[in-house]
Formats: sequence, structure tokens, C-alpha cells
Amino acid sequence: MNQENTPSLWKLPEPTLRRLPWYLAFVKLLKARGEIRVSSTQIAREIGVDPSLVAKDLSFVNVSGKTRIGYEIEILITVLEDFLGFSIQHKALLFGVGSLGAALLQDSGLRQYGLQIVAGFDIRDELQDTSVNGIPVFHISQFPARQQTLDATIGIITVPVDQAQKVADHIIAGGVRALWNFTPFRIRVPEDVVVQNTSMYAHLAVMFNRLSLLNHTK
Amino acid sequence: MNQENTPSLWKLPEPTLRRLPWYLAFVKLLKARGEIRVSSTQIAREIGVDPSLVAKDLSFVNVSGKTRIGYEIEILITVLEDFLGFSIQHKALLFGVGSLGAALLQDSGLRQYGLQIVAGFDIRDELQDTSVNGIPVFHISQFPARQQTLDATIGIITVPVDQAQKVADHIIAGGVRALWNFTPFRIRVPEDVVVQNTSMYAHLAVMFNRLSLLNHTK
Repeated sequence: MNQENTPSLWKLPEPTLRRLPWYLAFVKLLKARGEIRVSSTQIAREIGVDPSLVAKDLSFVNVSGKTRIGYEIEILITVLEDFLGFSIQHKALLFGVGSLGAALLQDSGLRQYGLQIVAGFDIRDELQDTSVNGIPVFHISQFPARQQTLDATIGIITVPVDQAQKVADHIIAGGVRALWNFTPFRIRVPEDVVVQNTSMYAHLAVMFNRLSLLNHTK
Repeated sequence: MNQENTPSLWKLPEPTLRRLPWYLAFVKLLKARGEIRVSSTQIAREIGVDPSLVAKDLSFVNVSGKTRIGYEIEILITVLEDFLGFSIQHKALLFGVGSLGAALLQDSGLRQYGLQIVAGFDIRDELQDTSVNGIPVFHISQFPARQQTLDATIGIITVPVDQAQKVADHIIAGGVRALWNFTPFRIRVPEDVVVQNTSMYAHLAVMFNRLSLLNHTK
């Protein structure tokens, strides 16, 4: 991987990082249709954002488009996948093998985007030494010892909300530096730890509000 | 439910709608600890946002706090759950019973937040008339007929990215007015249809970038 293509050199704006996967999904579609080249105007039209924004977002990525010719799709896909971190596997541990936790263990699709969940941990004795989708589940007390050999970089938090902070502290103490928090609790972490919050419930709240507004105005 | 507490009367700012579930999760924790009242300052400190922002967010909700006494926790929880649409069940259909789709069917926790998935649909014949977590799975061709009796208001899209737009069009033609899109494809919809995008891959991209930045600077 070309070092200049890695995202390690810049802290990209979060909106850009959220849009780049849309562009990637679209150009992969074009590739499947047998297309060779794509322009930023074409991406902009399809995604529904301003062409200048697409050009700006892609300027962060080390790929050059040519005026009136555009980007080579094959190259753009490779560069975007490398850049977004999807082409290398990041080892992750999942904490809380409940309803949502077990569901995430089932979702093998995450591997295509660079996330490899290598173990689950839970406080319940009856789950110990079971497995979900081929991924082993251990008792939470085994985490520090297992992490020595697993050497995971990401901790996924799917525990009940009242356990979120305690479990986060425990994961960080075990040497994990990035947390993917699925609970609606705002966990606190030291400055040198990354947290990404994915609250499906917050998205539901937005959707329900927009839907009821729609029903009210029709 | 008090009509004035329903979210139908205002189009709330999306950031407010995303923060309210955090406040709800926190005050539910306080209730479990036996607390009776909470101040906006206390919420602000715990969540890590500005107190004036908490007060502003809560001003959208029809609940009154008293100076130096704060909000009654029991009332605040009920009002927030009603307001966010979590206390009534919204019927949803899921399209694409693949890895992520089946995982979402497994996640019974969504019901606590007002989302009741009543059926899954897939194009694969072998999945027809199976069930996941007690939820029946039908062939996609049965959708228009099933929707007549199911009368669902939300369509969850977990199909492969190259099918996203086609399936979205099909769902809308069947009379569903809100789409929860889990694909990284930006689907287009008429103005009177609500779309909520939840791209787990975009969140992964942000997390990977922040993590590699961390590794680079240490």
C-alpha cells in the first residue's frame, strides 16, 4: 500500500469520511456494469451532492482525475478502499453477546469493510465457550489474558446501557485504543482513545419524527 | 398520549433528535439507581455537552423543569419516550434477508425503541416461508399482497447495493412512506417519502481514519 494513500497522514473532516464510502459504492456499481471511467460530475449527480464537494472530497485522496475524461474506475476503487481502511483487516473484540451483539457477530459482511471480529465476551456463564457464526465467546474475566494473544485494536460495545462506561474502562485498560459504541450511553475516554458512536435508536428517533410530521401534514 | 407531546407538530433539528435519546438513556440509568430528580446541568455534565444546549433541546419537549429542583425523572422518561416515538410500535418490513438483514431480524432490542419488524422479504426461493427469530420471510413477489394486510409504515433496506434503488422504488410503490437504508447507496425518493441512512461502513471509515492517525502520531 502506498504510504501516501493511507489515511494516517491527515485528520479528514468527518463529513468527507462519511461521503467517501457512498462514492465507493457507486463506482463499484459502475465497474460491475462494465464502465471504465467516471467524472466527479457524474458521481455528484448520482449521489445528489454538489460537484465541487465531490471534487473537494476526492482531493483528500491521492488520485488524479483528468479534465473531460475523469477518473479511472479500477484505480479509484483500489485507492478509496485503501484510503478508507477497508482493504486491511482490523481485529475487533465484541463485548456483550446479547441481541444486538450476537446479531453483529452474525454479520459477516463487515469483513468486506475491513472489520474482523475475532472474539466475543459476555458476563453470563452460560455463554462461555460457545460460538456465534464461528466466532468464539468467552467470559469477560478472560479478556485481559485473551487480548495478549489476540492483540485486537477495536472494541465493540453492545452491553446494556448501565454497563457501558464500566466495560469501556475495562477495554481501555486492556490496551484497546478504539471503541465502537452501539449503546445510547455517552462513554468518556482518555484523549488518546477513539470512540465512534453508532446509535441505531437515535436514527429511529429521527425517522419516527419525520414520519409523524409527514402524517400530520398530509 | 398527550397530543402536544407528540413529535408530529414540529420538524425538530436532527442534532436535537440525535441527542434526546442520550438524555433518555442517562435519566433511565438515574431512575434505576433510585434517583427522583435531575437538573439539565447534571445531564450536561454527564453527557459532555453544554448545559444551555441541554436546556434548549429539552425546550422542544413539553416538559417543565423547576429552577434549582430540576426535572422529575419519572415524568421526563415518559415524555421523552412518547416524544421520540419509542412508546408506540411502528410496523416495519425488512428487504434483503442476507447477513445484515438476518442480523437485524435477530435483534429483538429494537422493539423497546418502537420498531416492530413484522416480515422479511428476499428474492431467493430457498428462503421463502422460513422464519428468523419468529419473523416470517416471504418471496419479494409477495410484498404487494402482504402489505395489504400488514399495513407497515417503514421499509428496512438491507439488500446488496446494486439492488438498493430498485427495491426502494418497489417499496414506495407498495405504499410505504419511510425507508431505513442500511446500504451505502444513496437512494432517491419522492419528496413525501422519508429516508434515514444508517451506514455502518461510513462509521467504520471514520473510526479507521482516527485510529491510524493515533498510531501515526504516537
